[in-house]
Amino acid sequence: MNDNLISQSVRSLEAYVPGEQPKAKNVVKLNTNENPYPPTPKCAKVLASFDLDKLRRYPDPVFTKLRQAIARLNKCRVEQVFVGNGSDEILALAAKAFVEDGGTISSLDPSYSLYKTIAAIRDVEWKADDKNASLFLLTNPNAPTGEFMETRNVAAFAKAVKGVLLVDEAYADFARENAMPLACAGGNENVIVMRTFSKSYSLAGLRVGYCVGPENLVDALYKVKDSYNVDAIAQAVALAAIKDQRWMRANVAKVKRTRAATTKKLRSLGWDVIESESNFLFARPPAGGPGAEEIFLALKKRNIFVRYFSGPKTRDRLRITIGTPEQMQKLLSAITETTNK
Amino acid sequence: MNDNLISQSVRSLEAYVPGEQPKAKNVVKLNTNENPYPPTPKCAKVLASFDLDKLRRYPDPVFTKLRQAIARLNKCRVEQVFVGNGSDEILALAAKAFVEDGGTISSLDPSYSLYKTIAAIRDVEWKADDKNASLFLLTNPNAPTGEFMETRNVAAFAKAVKGVLLVDEAYADFARENAMPLACAGGNENVIVMRTFSKSYSLAGLRVGYCVGPENLVDALYKVKDSYNVDAIAQAVALAAIKDQRWMRANVAKVKRTRAATTKKLRSLGWDVIESESNFLFARPPAGGPGAEEIFLALKKRNIFVRYFSGPKTRDRLRITIGTPEQMQKLLSAITETTNK
Repeated sequence: MNDNLISQSVRSLEAYVPGEQPKAKNVVKLNTNENPYPPTPKCAKVLASFDLDKLRRYPDPVFTKLRQAIARLNKCRVEQVFVGNGSDEILALAAKAFVEDGGTISSLDPSYSLYKTIAAIRDVEWKADDKNASLFLLTNPNAPTGEFMETRNVAAFAKAVKGVLLVDEAYADFARENAMPLACAGGNENVIVMRTFSKSYSLAGLRVGYCVGPENLVDALYKVKDSYNVDAIAQAVALAAIKDQRWMRANVAKVKRTRAATTKKLRSLGWDVIESESNFLFARPPAGGPGAEEIFLALKKRNIFVRYFSGPKTRDRLRITIGTPEQMQKLLSAITETTNK
Repeated sequence: MNDNLISQSVRSLEAYVPGEQPKAKNVVKLNTNENPYPPTPKCAKVLASFDLDKLRRYPDPVFTKLRQAIARLNKCRVEQVFVGNGSDEILALAAKAFVEDGGTISSLDPSYSLYKTIAAIRDVEWKADDKNASLFLLTNPNAPTGEFMETRNVAAFAKAVKGVLLVDEAYADFARENAMPLACAGGNENVIVMRTFSKSYSLAGLRVGYCVGPENLVDALYKVKDSYNVDAIAQAVALAAIKDQRWMRANVAKVKRTRAATTKKLRSLGWDVIESESNFLFARPPAGGPGAEEIFLALKKRNIFVRYFSGPKTRDRLRITIGTPEQMQKLLSAITETTNK
């Protein structure tokens, strides 16, 4: 094997480690912010009636119908909409389209840990909270903290950022407001707002994300994408999902109720819980008892998976996805048992 | 709008123009090398019975089952297999993983026109037939010519290439042999062989391609890919397709029969037809009559779509996808009418 065939920056690259996907059946999985409720049954209908003959042909390279539905929902023009093979692809394309060699990508710290990997793959520097960066990735509500920046503050932030501000609103449907109006309106020439079907629409397995922004920036994403980046089935299923807003909203409402109840319960157990506008909590166990990592491992032994980030700013907390009330009950019981030992 | 927010190389980039996807119903579509026969009905079964609850969760980031099936089929180790969101994604990832800034990507000329776009997006030079390139993309059988390089010649070619030789075998199932054994064996440390589900498996709409090569090169692709680059449905449908080799082989046999008959017929009409080992022909109309572009336009008027490339090395020929015998009959009738006017 000849490693000289591999480009230098890739040789030294460390692959991003996504949250564990345990294979066991009876697992309580609260570690990757997936929705505990299934997507609309209309998605199953689309799959069952999908004309196989359509798969012979290349998909619509510019996902016309899906884009139209996205534009309608967000009250923007079709030309302002880009769709990716998951938000992940949009992030990688933005790193290509908006960052020169030698440029910088920035985000809050802590924030979504993938961003550093995106910068490393693009072979540019990542800096914390650098408003001079070519591309600033602002997760709002933030992950893993769940903290929320109000839209007027996002607008002010955008003005302070020199390059493109990409607001990653993966969790926006769980929040009280969002920055989409900034991306749709003229005048905010550096603001792109990104959404995903993975969380509120319960379609993490499908890989569809989209973003809205000024037409010239969106055009740049089209230029650097693969010819056919979203497959025909994904386009059709995502379309069915976005058309059933009522289903999505009902699931979001359930998650928010469970979020409130879990927050209250954890606080009553002495935990410090950041007020969340997302589908997860970022919570610190009370001092004097077992620490976050210890609880993380104890829960894992009981087949309850939450997320633990060992970084200096995150290691005293656990990130806990909001599941069903039954799952949260199991979690809370396990926490009580673990910490009362 | 502020174009200074877009990186310079992207500003000057011209987007790749894929073959037209006409919307009309009664079109004879012979322009993008799609398979005229549908994928195995087992794909429909997978779709109809797909557990919607699986879509809630992120897909297997390393497509374990699909990789295992690919490894079994090609008699290589699972660690040698990478799967992409279409071969397109693999090409873009290879351009990242194997080409330094300032490096070069090369291919034969003419070859698949997307390669130049891949180099432009990667912001490196593309050179014709440069064996010193960091990445040489060898389409075999070649497109748009249909010409074929025997495996022993590919092996010799690989030794002459300094960087990575990626053999794009999109059409290999239509050829008499292929270079997969080179990629599977040890000793060929710079050979990657790529396949797609778009052509022989009739799944262009699905976006699944794969490649096989030395483990260190394959590892590099895993490092630079998006976390979840192939969605759960695509993984399942591709798995069903690869397991039904008989269905694929039967379709390929039909296409090959039609290819032979069409070649013969066109030659009898005075066309120069390159002997094809793929699912398309590259054919030059006889001198003295209407030229390739004229025939292309005349056919289009009759709702028959073939492909015309205006470059100096390709403009005297048409690339004609092999359709059903009925479609080819329509094409041949239209050609006869057009050229006898």
